[in-house]
Amino acid sequence: MAVNSPLPVAADLKAVAGISLGFAQAGIRKPNRKDLLVMSLAPTATVSGVFTTNRFCAAPVQVCKAHLEGLHMASAPIRALVVNTGNANAGTGDAGLAAANATCAALAELMGCEPAQILPFSTGVILEPLPVDRLCAGLPAAIANLKEDNWYAAAEAIMTTDTQPKAASANVTINGVKVTMTGISKGAGMIKPNMATMLGYLALDAKVAQPVLDHLVIQAANKSFNCITIDGDTSTNDSFMLIATGQSALEINDVESPEYAALAEAVIALAQKLAHMIIRDGEGATKFITIQVEQGRDVEECRKIAYSIAHSPLVKTAFFASDPNLGRILAAIGYAGVHDLDVSQLNLYLDDVWVAKNGGRNPDYREEDGQRVMKQSEITIKVKLARGDANATIWTCDLSHEYVSINADYRS
Amino acid sequence: MAVNSPLPVAADLKAVAGISLGFAQAGIRKPNRKDLLVMSLAPTATVSGVFTTNRFCAAPVQVCKAHLEGLHMASAPIRALVVNTGNANAGTGDAGLAAANATCAALAELMGCEPAQILPFSTGVILEPLPVDRLCAGLPAAIANLKEDNWYAAAEAIMTTDTQPKAASANVTINGVKVTMTGISKGAGMIKPNMATMLGYLALDAKVAQPVLDHLVIQAANKSFNCITIDGDTSTNDSFMLIATGQSALEINDVESPEYAALAEAVIALAQKLAHMIIRDGEGATKFITIQVEQGRDVEECRKIAYSIAHSPLVKTAFFASDPNLGRILAAIGYAGVHDLDVSQLNLYLDDVWVAKNGGRNPDYREEDGQRVMKQSEITIKVKLARGDANATIWTCDLSHEYVSINADYRS
Repeated sequence: MAVNSPLPVAADLKAVAGISLGFAQAGIRKPNRKDLLVMSLAPTATVSGVFTTNRFCAAPVQVCKAHLEGLHMASAPIRALVVNTGNANAGTGDAGLAAANATCAALAELMGCEPAQILPFSTGVILEPLPVDRLCAGLPAAIANLKEDNWYAAAEAIMTTDTQPKAASANVTINGVKVTMTGISKGAGMIKPNMATMLGYLALDAKVAQPVLDHLVIQAANKSFNCITIDGDTSTNDSFMLIATGQSALEINDVESPEYAALAEAVIALAQKLAHMIIRDGEGATKFITIQVEQGRDVEECRKIAYSIAHSPLVKTAFFASDPNLGRILAAIGYAGVHDLDVSQLNLYLDDVWVAKNGGRNPDYREEDGQRVMKQSEITIKVKLARGDANATIWTCDLSHEYVSINADYRS
Repeated sequence: MAVNSPLPVAADLKAVAGISLGFAQAGIRKPNRKDLLVMSLAPTATVSGVFTTNRFCAAPVQVCKAHLEGLHMASAPIRALVVNTGNANAGTGDAGLAAANATCAALAELMGCEPAQILPFSTGVILEPLPVDRLCAGLPAAIANLKEDNWYAAAEAIMTTDTQPKAASANVTINGVKVTMTGISKGAGMIKPNMATMLGYLALDAKVAQPVLDHLVIQAANKSFNCITIDGDTSTNDSFMLIATGQSALEINDVESPEYAALAEAVIALAQKLAHMIIRDGEGATKFITIQVEQGRDVEECRKIAYSIAHSPLVKTAFFASDPNLGRILAAIGYAGVHDLDVSQLNLYLDDVWVAKNGGRNPDYREEDGQRVMKQSEITIKVKLARGDANATIWTCDLSHEYVSINADYRS
């Protein structure tokens, strides 16, 4: 059971005009599970994406980038996205690229478009050949059940070690026009997105010009998926896709407009919700931890310190144990690589409890206060650096026995 | 039981003329355990040390640095080292500094020297006040049992979560003079030394000039303790001390001399042995893993990639499971931060098994070969980058349930 994250309710997920979703059981890795998803787009749709910075980026990521690049050369619009689980098609060399391209070709033929109008995605085990024949054999079934209200099943179809599907919807009214948006995401391990999460898709029905959408997807990723970490392992397949189906009366062509600001706020809020769902369902997670680093010289050093805390196995196991062994947080701050950090100015808080004052234990700090906060399932660590006005927030989870069990069992 | 690391045999540990060791049960954190160690030096001794780069470096580390700095201003030689376990005296602010200085003053008075001739060390919980009264009350008992052949008990006296004491001796004959050296170390968690390990002490009986010893301690640390990691958590208290008691007929005054080279080789070998003992006794460790990164442009990028592999929870749990889920190693290489790495040239080996060839799965790789190596308790990962001739080696261990248990229980 994910940390304070009730199952999404299928009926609450709103259809977004201009995008329909179909799934299949293609037997990619294991039989009898949804492992193939097709998202079909209206020709009015614009699509933008951000991808992993891992140098071993997967073959489908390379193909997606090439096809999106094509968009900017005014070629035909993206008509479908196809996602398989069970195999990441990463570390697979030229054979992997050929498999990703074959997937696009097969789906393009079924949909009557060009392969360059398809975006492929994969998630699962790395370094194993993609069973592209089984994947392609599953495509007709996925196309046969394409529906606008299939979001819940779509969220299920992209799960790997996730314990529950991740999906959410939102509305925002801009200039009197209601914009409907729905997103899905997946991921529970190998999560420290550096561009985007393992897989995230957010569709909305406004018409958004391509350069505006390109701007928004980066802005949204940087405020959501790029601020979460479970284990510090940046995946080979991270992708976050933003789809504007162009089916509503609202049209946004300018990132400086008030309409853009309103849309961006709503998209960021929904993207954060989806990103938080990933942390709440982090492998073995029992705590949802927010790390706020304030008063830094720049955002980069705030993020460095926040990630250093978030990745420390000692900090994570202390949270799992609800043990206020908070010196471990100081140690993680100290080795974060901010070389001129003056720790004698630093203050540390756990929720409302002032733990460290001017770099040492706050004389008023009482163990029982730390203990009280540590027992909660949602905890905020706040670090004040007293050297500037930059800040950053990172979300993470604890490290439990269950994390080890899951990852010592993954392929067996 | 540490990985392939039999208990040191007390009788095998050689006394080093000019250094005697005494311990006590001071009740620093828990009763009835050795938690205080005094090492008394002949006035002929030279001492050099390297310390943690953690910005939250502990109060005793700050005092050690100041006292060693004093040496370079030709003040009186270091006469004793004092080590307590059970409390790190880190994150303790001005009160912590006062406690470390009080420890030096108390021991100096008992030994008839100046406080600046004492080096204090602490290891244990961070952010808690050092019980300096109990520590000082234990000093007379420690002094009362000072002996040259107390090395085994000394190794026991500095243990925290270690499951066994770490100690080793070696001889080297230089210019016909036999040099005897013995070292001890401790540490099992919060281990990614960045200068030195949690605590390491290596004494030898040659006479080594101060600048030569200063050079050697850095060289030895960089080849041993600075190449190990258990959990990536660089401690607040890491210290590695090299002591030359000056009691043998060999005198070394020049780092360019063949005598220096011979001594350095022997010291490095012993320091590596002590560092490996820490990994073999890593918290919950079941595997001893050597990571060799070759053909890099510079040592820095080789170390980046080696640490990225060594710190990946997914790689570590796969080794715990003996599961050749080796794509996780590629992912860790890919996000190591070597931004222009051309993965299509990269080769990966597990012992003698060629796993990835030119960035993809080696067509000749068979899962059963990977499985065979993964089942061993000692495994070498070799990465060839094909972009230069630099290389680096890092030693680490796996991540098991036991690691989580130990660190979720540490203070309770």
